[in-house]
Amino acid sequence: EITFNPVDHPHRRYNPLTGQWILVSPHRAKRPWSGQDEKPTADNKASYDAGCFLCPGNTRVSGDVNPDYTGTYVFQNDFAALMPDSPDAPMSDNPLFKTQGVRGLSRVICFSPDHSKTLPELPVPQIRNLVDTWDEQIEALGKEYLWVQVFENKGEAMGCSQPHPHGQVWANSFLPNEIERKDKNLRDYYQEHGSNLLVDYVQAELNDGARTVVETKHWIAVVPYWAAWPFETMLLPKVHVRRMNELSDEQRDDLALAVQKLTSRYDNLFQCSFPYSMGWHYAPFFEVDESIADKSTDHWQLHALFYPPLLRSATVKKFMVGYEMLAESQRDLTAEQAAERLRALSDVHYKLEK
Amino acid sequence: EITFNPVDHPHRRYNPLTGQWILVSPHRAKRPWSGQDEKPTADNKASYDAGCFLCPGNTRVSGDVNPDYTGTYVFQNDFAALMPDSPDAPMSDNPLFKTQGVRGLSRVICFSPDHSKTLPELPVPQIRNLVDTWDEQIEALGKEYLWVQVFENKGEAMGCSQPHPHGQVWANSFLPNEIERKDKNLRDYYQEHGSNLLVDYVQAELNDGARTVVETKHWIAVVPYWAAWPFETMLLPKVHVRRMNELSDEQRDDLALAVQKLTSRYDNLFQCSFPYSMGWHYAPFFEVDESIADKSTDHWQLHALFYPPLLRSATVKKFMVGYEMLAESQRDLTAEQAAERLRALSDVHYKLEK
Ligand SMILES: O=P(O)(O)O[C@H]1O[C@H](CO)[C@@H](O)[C@H](O)[C@H]1O
Ligand SMILES: O=P(O)(O)O[C@H]1O[C@H](CO)[C@@H](O)[C@H](O)[C@H]1O
Repeated sequence: EITFNPVDHPHRRYNPLTGQWILVSPHRAKRPWSGQDEKPTADNKASYDAGCFLCPGNTRVSGDVNPDYTGTYVFQNDFAALMPDSPDAPMSDNPLFKTQGVRGLSRVICFSPDHSKTLPELPVPQIRNLVDTWDEQIEALGKEYLWVQVFENKGEAMGCSQPHPHGQVWANSFLPNEIERKDKNLRDYYQEHGSNLLVDYVQAELNDGARTVVETKHWIAVVPYWAAWPFETMLLPKVHVRRMNELSDEQRDDLALAVQKLTSRYDNLFQCSFPYSMGWHYAPFFEVDESIADKSTDHWQLHALFYPPLLRSATVKKFMVGYEMLAESQRDLTAEQAAERLRALSDVHYKLEK
Repeated sequence: EITFNPVDHPHRRYNPLTGQWILVSPHRAKRPWSGQDEKPTADNKASYDAGCFLCPGNTRVSGDVNPDYTGTYVFQNDFAALMPDSPDAPMSDNPLFKTQGVRGLSRVICFSPDHSKTLPELPVPQIRNLVDTWDEQIEALGKEYLWVQVFENKGEAMGCSQPHPHGQVWANSFLPNEIERKDKNLRDYYQEHGSNLLVDYVQAELNDGARTVVETKHWIAVVPYWAAWPFETMLLPKVHVRRMNELSDEQRDDLALAVQKLTSRYDNLFQCSFPYSMGWHYAPFFEVDESIADKSTDHWQLHALFYPPLLRSATVKKFMVGYEMLAESQRDLTAEQAAERLRALSDVHYKLEK
């Protein structure tokens, strides 16, 4: 009889944060590819681009002029998906046609005045500056909004339409699907085990090491056991932290370092600007919503999620399409194999190595 | 005070099949786009390509030779994500590291020997032939597998690596996430209302018409109220049908016609071969799994789902990235606006109009 070996045999792994399974087909990486290639991102950008909406001093579509900023710079998105003052939708008693009115807003965060740089290429103090900006935005908007989603779409493959290094923050009067589901799963675990799911998970990963990609004094980045995207990672503090505002100066500096190391390894994997969507999850602002009775957040743990699409090379990504959309996410290498490949690389960015 | 208007005001709509919400931001379609362009699919393919793995008479990577087939042709996928005989994974009592062994297989369905054609360009009798092939594959594999997913990834934008017209069928020893969730939601509705959710929904859409794209004698295609992708559609029979094997000859011929009309409208929208992932959902094969006590399937209704990525033109798609991956799906036009645009087109394929 054959014994089970996760590197040879298809299996499913369970994501306790979403309650969903992932189909792992590690033997499948061998198939040939003659499908779509991504364009690798142009490498020789100038530090200033007169046609860029995000560069200092330039005029945006709205007519507003960007200041001569030197660190991060935040402005209201000129084409926001949400509005602060939209009216409520009428209630419907038909369960097949349920509508909900929403309020919100959306802002752009420029990471640096330098048009030519990407996150991993910024010096650690500039990334630390971004950490503080994230935190400020989250706490300021959280005074009014139940959920504040901070994220970055990096690279054209991830729908980024502006090469200038930037991310976004969307504030919502509601708990989006993914947050509502995660809140429920974290809360259930806390009630059942009397401990925090992600704090327990960090401990298990620190003890194991097979999925660790970056470890600094206060932070760990792992390819989660249940990763869906080929080189997906999760970045977490080693201790219990509900939101960024609880982080000390030292933890923030160390976070900037961890972000730099992780994203440099990404770029080093295929020697390209590695596309991804990343964002932060943390305790929602239950205080602002009177209809929520249980405002406890001890079950939450701050963490960043990185979802990079590339699979085989700088130009061949994993397509989450037919089977994945209709049935279940599927991956072509194990989490341990992905972590091993990222771990084997230098954490100094290939462009910065002499 | 402003009154709510779904065409002007951001809102959420509820998908009763998945239990998830969709953020609708109809005012957002106005923003400029300077991001990634898709390559439109090459239009002048030959009917036979000596280098194609799927053309009749050619040799595949495995060394097998395709017969000189004239209708549809089904073969075992040479790089399957699943295996019929993988061993069971050892049980783990750690809720953070849950693994499940799986069995399954995967086949390729060539739609036609003609390398140059796509689904909408095939004559109705050939599409009818495909309907029968789908049904045969589903029923044959359902003798052994709990779930059989039939799907097509069309176009490079949807990860299709072979231009020859084809789809796939993946058989699973387990209920994939999407099916398990849908089974639960359909069952709950059936228990609560004593009727079938999708049969009720079809009735409501037949009465309304605002989201209808194609209607034939026995079938209706709508942009569902809760659509996530810009031009997403759902194709359903007008009466209660649990699986394709219950369809009469007349219903099958009419399905072939409905598929042709729907996919022709898609191609006509941007005068290009419109990429999508599509697939069928239907009652699972509960009979094969002894561990499932309740084998009832009256809450199921056969339906096809089309998920096309294009948003603005033949080359600009909707990116489901940062906010969507981390928080919630978001769309830039209402379901009614999308349906209206598809309805305004001819249902004769632009290449076939003289
Ligand atoms: O097997 P194919 O067609 O080469 O592969 C395609 O469809 C599969 C099923 O949706 C996906 O897992 C792959 O990412 C995609 O490229
Ligand atoms: O606002 P942007 O950066 O132009 O838009 C990008 O991110 C958004 C949020 O993830 C997505 O809805 C868009 O599809 C994507 O192109």
